[in-house]
Amino acid sequence: MSLEGLSINFATIKQGGSFATLVDACLHHGITTISPWRDHVHGVGLEEAARIVAQNGIRLSGHCRGGFFPAHDAQGRRDAIEDNKRAVDEAAAMNADCLVLVVGGLPVGSKDINGARQMVEDGMAALLPYARQAGVPLAIEPLHPFYAADRACFNTLKQSLDLCDRLGEGTGVAIDVYHVWWDPELEEQMARAGRNGQILAHHICDWLVPTTDPLNDRGMMGDGVIDLKAFRRMIETAGFTGPQEVEIFSNTWNARPIDQVLTTVVERYRALSAD
Amino acid sequence: MSLEGLSINFATIKQGGSFATLVDACLHHGITTISPWRDHVHGVGLEEAARIVAQNGIRLSGHCRGGFFPAHDAQGRRDAIEDNKRAVDEAAAMNADCLVLVVGGLPVGSKDINGARQMVEDGMAALLPYARQAGVPLAIEPLHPFYAADRACFNTLKQSLDLCDRLGEGTGVAIDVYHVWWDPELEEQMARAGRNGQILAHHICDWLVPTTDPLNDRGMMGDGVIDLKAFRRMIETAGFTGPQEVEIFSNTWNARPIDQVLTTVVERYRALSAD
Repeated sequence: MSLEGLSINFATIKQGGSFATLVDACLHHGITTISPWRDHVHGVGLEEAARIVAQNGIRLSGHCRGGFFPAHDAQGRRDAIEDNKRAVDEAAAMNADCLVLVVGGLPVGSKDINGARQMVEDGMAALLPYARQAGVPLAIEPLHPFYAADRACFNTLKQSLDLCDRLGEGTGVAIDVYHVWWDPELEEQMARAGRNGQILAHHICDWLVPTTDPLNDRGMMGDGVIDLKAFRRMIETAGFTGPQEVEIFSNTWNARPIDQVLTTVVERYRALSAD
Repeated sequence: MSLEGLSINFATIKQGGSFATLVDACLHHGITTISPWRDHVHGVGLEEAARIVAQNGIRLSGHCRGGFFPAHDAQGRRDAIEDNKRAVDEAAAMNADCLVLVVGGLPVGSKDINGARQMVEDGMAALLPYARQAGVPLAIEPLHPFYAADRACFNTLKQSLDLCDRLGEGTGVAIDVYHVWWDPELEEQMARAGRNGQILAHHICDWLVPTTDPLNDRGMMGDGVIDLKAFRRMIETAGFTGPQEVEIFSNTWNARPIDQVLTTVVERYRALSAD
C-alpha cells in the first residue's frame, strides 16, 4: 500500500534532531509528506529547507504554525501580523498546502474572550491579502476548548467556519481529530466545510482514557476512543481526500527512538486504511 | 451582605469530614445553602441527612449526582436507571432544587459517542416519570469537552437544551462556568434556556492558566480567566436568580483546612457581588 496519504507532523518526532535528519527518517520509511514546525526550518535556514524539500520531492501538508494574534497592546498585535507574514513566506518557499494557524488565546491578564476573538479576526484580515498574494491558504485550526484560554480562542468547527465565511477566499480549517471528535455538530459542520472547499488539512492521533497530561498525552492511532475510520469516512464524504497528518504531542512517544515511532505510525496507518 | 445567594458544593470542602460536620462548618460561616454528594448522605444515612437539613433550615441548590447512563450491556443500563431512582429519592427527601446529572461517557471499549448519547437519552426518558412523580427536576450538567470520553458525552449548552426540549417538563440544565465559559454560543443558549425556564443551577469556580491537572486544578473565583461578573449578569438577564454554587475540584484547596477555604470563598463571593 502506498504511503502517499500519510504525512508526519514533526511534533511527533521532534526528539529526532534537525530538519534534514527528520526528513531523512521519513524518507527511510517511505514517507514523502511532512509538516514541519518553524523552529525546524529556522534551524537549517529557509533556503536550505526549501532545497531539501524540492530536491527530495517532499510535499508539505502544512507549515506549523502561524497565529497568536491577540496581544495586550497594538504594537504586540502588529508584531504578530509581521511574524505571520514571515511564516507565510516560509510556507510559500516550501510550497506548503497551507499555513496552519493556532490563533492565540487571551492576552495575559485579560478575561475578555470576545475581545480576543475580535483580535484574531482583525489580525487574520490584516494578514490575508499578503497570504493571498503568496498563494498560501490560511488554515484556522480550531483547538479543543481545553486550550481556549492560552492557545486558541476558536474552539469549534462552526465558529471557525463562520470566521472563514466572513474573511472569504484563501481561508479554511485544519481539522484535527483530537480537537473536534467530541463536537455534536461535527458531521454537519464538516459537510458544510467540504461544500465550500474549506477543508485544508486533516490531522490524526487518538484520545486516551485517562488523559493524564493536558498538553502532552495524545495517543497513537488505535490506542484511544476516537473512531478514526468513521472520522476519515466523514471527511472524505465531505470532499477532502488529502493526507492524514499524524500529529502526536506525547511525552511517551517523544521519549522513544523516532525509528520506532515511525514504524508504529506506518503500521497503525495501514490498519486504519484497511477495509 | 446576606449570603443567601451563596451555596457550597461539598466537593469544595470534602476534606472536612462527614455530612454533619460540613453542614456545621457552613452554618458557622453563615452559609445556609449547600449541595452535597451522595456519599456524604450515605455516610450518615438519608433519614439523618434529611433531619439535619430540615432542622437547620438548609436549602439544597442541588444533589450531586445522578447520571452515568451508558453501559456496555442492557443490564448495566437498567442498573443505572435504578440507581438514579435512589438518587431522586434522596433529592426529594432533602427537598433539593434539582438532581444534578453527570450523564456519563463512553462505555469501556466503545468508540461510539453517538451511541452513548442515545443511551443517555433513553436512560433519562426512563427515569423522568419517576422524577416528575417525586417533584425532582433533572439537571443535565453539560461538562467541558475534556470529559466527553469518560464522564459526560453532553458537552455544550445547546446540545443539552436540545435534549431537554425532546424530553420535556421536569428537565433543565446546571450551568457551571468551568464547563461552558469558552462556548461561542454561550449568551444565545443561556438566553434560550432562561426563556424556557430550563436553568436549574449555576456553579462557579475559575479556570486557571496554566491548568496543570485535568481533573483537580479548578481555581478559586478570581484566580483565573473567567469573567465571573459578566457571566452572572448574563445568567440573571436570562432569568436565573438562584444561588451561585461554589464547586471547586482542587488538590490545592482540598489540602487546606475547610475553615480557611470557606473564609476565602465568602471573601471572593462578596467581591464578585460588589458593584
